Amino acid sequence: MNTFGTYYRLTSFGESHGAAIGGVIDGCPAGVALDVDFIRRELSRRRPGQSALTTPRNETDTVEFLSGIYEGKTTGAPLGFIVQNKDQHPADYDEMKNVFRPSHADYTYQTKYGIRDPHGGGRSSARTTIAQCVAGAVAKLILRHWGVAIQAYTSQVGHIRLEGSYKEYDLNLTENNAVRCPDVGKAAEMEALIRKVKADGDTVGGIITCVITGVPAGLGEPVFGKLHAALGAAMLSINAVKGFDYGDGFDGAFYRGSEHNDLFFNDNGKVSTRTNYSGGIQGGISNGQDIYFRVAFKAVSTVLRPQTTVDTDYNETILEAKGRHDPCVLPRAVPIVEAMAAMTVLDYRLAANARSFSQGGV
Amino acid sequence: MNTFGTYYRLTSFGESHGAAIGGVIDGCPAGVALDVDFIRRELSRRRPGQSALTTPRNETDTVEFLSGIYEGKTTGAPLGFIVQNKDQHPADYDEMKNVFRPSHADYTYQTKYGIRDPHGGGRSSARTTIAQCVAGAVAKLILRHWGVAIQAYTSQVGHIRLEGSYKEYDLNLTENNAVRCPDVGKAAEMEALIRKVKADGDTVGGIITCVITGVPAGLGEPVFGKLHAALGAAMLSINAVKGFDYGDGFDGAFYRGSEHNDLFFNDNGKVSTRTNYSGGIQGGISNGQDIYFRVAFKAVSTVLRPQTTVDTDYNETILEAKGRHDPCVLPRAVPIVEAMAAMTVLDYRLAANARSFSQGGV
Amino acid sequence: MNTFGTYYRLTSFGESHGAAIGGVIDGCPAGVALDVDFIRRELSRRRPGQSALTTPRNETDTVEFLSGIYEGKTTGAPLGFIVQNKDQHPADYDEMKNVFRPSHADYTYQTKYGIRDPHGGGRSSARTTIAQCVAGAVAKLILRHWGVAIQAYTSQVGHIRLEGSYKEYDLNLTENNAVRCPDVGKAAEMEALIRKVKADGDTVGGIITCVITGVPAGLGEPVFGKLHAALGAAMLSINAVKGFDYGDGFDGAFYRGSEHNDLFFNDNGKVSTRTNYSGGIQGGISNGQDIYFRVAFKAVSTVLRPQTTVDTDYNETILEAKGRHDPCVLPRAVPIVEAMAAMTVLDYRLAANARSFSQGGV
Amino acid sequence: MNTFGTYYRLTSFGESHGAAIGGVIDGCPAGVALDVDFIRRELSRRRPGQSALTTPRNETDTVEFLSGIYEGKTTGAPLGFIVQNKDQHPADYDEMKNVFRPSHADYTYQTKYGIRDPHGGGRSSARTTIAQCVAGAVAKLILRHWGVAIQAYTSQVGHIRLEGSYKEYDLNLTENNAVRCPDVGKAAEMEALIRKVKADGDTVGGIITCVITGVPAGLGEPVFGKLHAALGAAMLSINAVKGFDYGDGFDGAFYRGSEHNDLFFNDNGKVSTRTNYSGGIQGGISNGQDIYFRVAFKAVSTVLRPQTTVDTDYNETILEAKGRHDPCVLPRAVPIVEAMAAMTVLDYRLAANARSFSQGGV
Repeated sequence: MNTFGTYYRLTSFGESHGAAIGGVIDGCPAGVALDVDFIRRELSRRRPGQSALTTPRNETDTVEFLSGIYEGKTTGAPLGFIVQNKDQHPADYDEMKNVFRPSHADYTYQTKYGIRDPHGGGRSSARTTIAQCVAGAVAKLILRHWGVAIQAYTSQVGHIRLEGSYKEYDLNLTENNAVRCPDVGKAAEMEALIRKVKADGDTVGGIITCVITGVPAGLGEPVFGKLHAALGAAMLSINAVKGFDYGDGFDGAFYRGSEHNDLFFNDNGKVSTRTNYSGGIQGGISNGQDIYFRVAFKAVSTVLRPQTTVDTDYNETILEAKGRHDPCVLPRAVPIVEAMAAMTVLDYRLAANARSFSQGGV
Repeated sequence: MNTFGTYYRLTSFGESHGAAIGGVIDGCPAGVALDVDFIRRELSRRRPGQSALTTPRNETDTVEFLSGIYEGKTTGAPLGFIVQNKDQHPADYDEMKNVFRPSHADYTYQTKYGIRDPHGGGRSSARTTIAQCVAGAVAKLILRHWGVAIQAYTSQVGHIRLEGSYKEYDLNLTENNAVRCPDVGKAAEMEALIRKVKADGDTVGGIITCVITGVPAGLGEPVFGKLHAALGAAMLSINAVKGFDYGDGFDGAFYRGSEHNDLFFNDNGKVSTRTNYSGGIQGGISNGQDIYFRVAFKAVSTVLRPQTTVDTDYNETILEAKGRHDPCVLPRAVPIVEAMAAMTVLDYRLAANARSFSQGGV
Repeated sequence: MNTFGTYYRLTSFGESHGAAIGGVIDGCPAGVALDVDFIRRELSRRRPGQSALTTPRNETDTVEFLSGIYEGKTTGAPLGFIVQNKDQHPADYDEMKNVFRPSHADYTYQTKYGIRDPHGGGRSSARTTIAQCVAGAVAKLILRHWGVAIQAYTSQVGHIRLEGSYKEYDLNLTENNAVRCPDVGKAAEMEALIRKVKADGDTVGGIITCVITGVPAGLGEPVFGKLHAALGAAMLSINAVKGFDYGDGFDGAFYRGSEHNDLFFNDNGKVSTRTNYSGGIQGGISNGQDIYFRVAFKAVSTVLRPQTTVDTDYNETILEAKGRHDPCVLPRAVPIVEAMAAMTVLDYRLAANARSFSQGGV
Repeated sequence: MNTFGTYYRLTSFGESHGAAIGGVIDGCPAGVALDVDFIRRELSRRRPGQSALTTPRNETDTVEFLSGIYEGKTTGAPLGFIVQNKDQHPADYDEMKNVFRPSHADYTYQTKYGIRDPHGGGRSSARTTIAQCVAGAVAKLILRHWGVAIQAYTSQVGHIRLEGSYKEYDLNLTENNAVRCPDVGKAAEMEALIRKVKADGDTVGGIITCVITGVPAGLGEPVFGKLHAALGAAMLSINAVKGFDYGDGFDGAFYRGSEHNDLFFNDNGKVSTRTNYSGGIQGGISNGQDIYFRVAFKAVSTVLRPQTTVDTDYNETILEAKGRHDPCVLPRAVPIVEAMAAMTVLDYRLAANARSFSQGGV
């Protein structure tokens, strides 16, 4: 299933060491000026090799749009795009061809399909998220017209975590450091930890927090189309993600209703809430407050240490991994989280249009 | 969006105080003997009034199937079903008609639709999950043929929690107590807490853990159709759910790759893993190990205490809630979690059939 | 696949001799006053027993709505509805239980599902189109607000046909006779033919023409979502339909481009065309002219004459059909054609909303 | 809507004079040896410039696959592909930029999107069907393993038509002449007609007949997913198509049930029918007999004669068309009809797998 979204839809293709990653964006509104520089900047935020904390794979990750644009604006026709892979090293994986790497998708893909592209995980590689970043960047451009902004940041790496709510940080500082953490002191600690883990040939997990502002009340659908369910599914589709919660999330289990309810008040003619434990979503529909959520990432499965495993004939063996990898995916995952959030919110924004009958005033 | 699933699909309808809750199950395989007694037992697990811990609303929740069955077996035609509401008290809500109850869906539905059924939350009520329980029970019957079993239990209520993994409990004990917790001692503590909270006119949240055994390797889809993303979306569609994680989930953020990887070994000719931090899913596809996940619930929003809020004209006011409600939804949510899990796994089991070309051996 | 539509969606259930026919309408805009009398009148147009030309099965076909309505208006929640079957005679089919009726769906359902409800065709019966008529009537109510009107009529029965275009008839006369033909003289001939065919224990086919007025330019989608492709699929889903064409359709094969092109002109500030061979749709998108199309129906397969066939053990046998049936479905199919057209146009009208970005003027 | 299919899905992109036409094939079974030569031969059947009867635009139409293949076999990952446009002449359309060409999609696209790529019709061009031919060729390769074969041919051009059923011709002769008609004499007449029409600066329509053999009984879905409804929607999505019928189709309107029913008999242990007016489909599901249908095409709208029309400011004007075009699309549409049929049948073949529960024998 390589299509995401219902109204604004990305269908993607490509493998880690294939010719290109690409996709088709369908349902993009017409008449949008496509700021290709902005899209390229967004892509460069997830680009490998951007800092000492990331994989050394050297890619420019330049997107080419092949259709759907006339005189710089979208026409309503699908946007086909490709990003060429340049620095493929498939040979690095030749000796892992017949081995199932622990906690990777090698065994499950082999079992499901009876065949498997062994080069860097093939389709299961996080390199495929380039397509999401392209479609997410286009979505951001559109949402900007409606005043919606999306900002994610690294809030935990291993045991180092930001204790405060997102309100306590200046999120504009996020891009100032290599880990993408708005707290300068914690960012330095996280960076040091990642360097140490890398030196150990190991990897480490963490948490990304994401905040969406400017979403009007009324986006989302009852029952099976709840806005937070769609955001959750979007985040859980990102490689290495293990958990999602929104508002007070898992902490909400500890609260009583009387402590936890968000009381409404009249904020100069607008309905607002005194607290926001709900995370901006009630009954699956946005209530006009900030939407915020957390996304938990496991440590990257590729470690540069010997591990026991089995080969494709089920014989036990020792694996010594090669290939380039990230010691911690969090810094590069920040723009991916934002991209998935942008696509989701835009999808629901367009869906809301489809239903607006009484609003239109018959 | 009132349809769940792609291959095995539930489309539901109904409101808390309307004539009936019902739905249509489409994509149900033909030739399944429909054990209606089993389905009714499953429904009675979520029935109101089943213990002192739940709402006193008195409903038998008897399901009637209207189609899709011939001589006791499914025919492949859609199963239409209804569950009559019997003990509606819409008048209880008349004075709340013009008030937005805090942390309920009143304000968001009104904003989205410009109109709202105020009786017990209308469509936003958890009473609508009856439909999910019916479709989930049918899914369980089918999965049983393939050796798949699903068991959920209450693992946390407020600050009282089970510290161990699901492997440390005998899950067959879950149904022996009113909170549906397999640890008898903790169950008693949870029950006492819920009684106290109820006496205080308050409510409390918690966590449900769910375990799925017998899923073969190979279920799930790459990229946007990951099995855990589908499970997450299913759980986040349940009323009051605030978070979802699977395997080691949010705890995985603390681990290093070298600690956390699940090493493969040959288990008498079958590939197995020495640990199961992955929660039975790798790269979005089941690997044959147990699947387990957690679902976080907030406290019920209806508290029997005065709260400040606004009315539909945005005037500030004091709300004194009436209506019947649960002090803690966890006990009755256990079968709902199982039902959503069953529908999800069956959907992916049927999807796997659709793709099985090479397996069939061309 | 028992769901029709993308934005305005009907999911139906029920069999010919089961307890009820019903369905769920999802995506219905909120705030629509539901004129139940109108819906019942529409249903009575397809009701059996309405004239000597139809099956004598005696049903009132009274629809009950179970959800989605508050104070007479739709709430945006799904509309669940049922129509009880009253005059079932399943025993009429007992002796045909083990026989495959020629040109019915008995053999194909048995082969597909390995099980079959033999009573009146079960799910394959045209009785199931009650659900379409309910959802179509609701769609008509909504379209009326936008000035869209849909009128179908019988234009051919056997060899008796209307030679003129729809413009040559007063379509308001359609309901004045039992065959639903706006030409009084031809209607009498058609009626005489149907009576003769009935007396012969035989059946006869024909053509229905449908005209949709008031559709604004711009409805439809490029490539795979062409408006006429959706109308075609809708019509081809009606029982006994064998063909569909729009505009000059099959006759267009004979024309040259220079004869057949619809020249644009400025009609008092509005773009109009001098001819309408295009049938109101160009490149899959409505152009503001009348939409018209034809739907071909085969003769009903149940004839009251002995026919050779095979039983479920593949032995050859003679079938003498029983059961009540229509000698010609055309008269009762007119409202079904309108209902499917209404659902299709509403679906595209709501879809058009979803895309309207530039139109909204960012 | 640029996606076709449910299980085997093509999402396409590209415009007539853009950089490339391309697409993504998702849901392709794994393990299929991809015979790229065969795919290229199929593409060359719709290639412009292949004979004097077609547009002189000079394209090699060479497809490049960018993903989804490992060692020559499909992996179950999406197949991304592109076909570069080489012989674009966008400047040919510059003077038509502000004019709505009669019976083209210029006016409807402009109205729908508020913006339009004027070069050769942009997205509305039949050049986009290259993507369908690629995906259809892959589908044919897969269907071949199951013994399914698809053959279309030109059965009418203007008033010249084949009177016989497909059984009366040797369909292997179809590719022997430039019009793709299996009757040599008629082919010559058709060719002469097309040459004459071309010399007149005019265009002409016609009919394509398509036959599918080897489809087992049981493919298709009840009610809204009937196999012929899917085939109809597929055909009606092809540029210039105005009508579709299957089996005896529109002629069926003239028949009586007693003449028209297909009587079953035991054909050496297999159920077969003595006639095949049903066109191989009963109740929307294949019955194992040959499937055949007709597709009506209008004449190409671009004629090399002056026509009156309006410009984008709604002023009346005279259009003298330029650009390269086909005098008759039928010859090049034959492989497109086959491609759409192949995708549809494969989609239903995969769908049938998803439902096969009882067949599997629980």
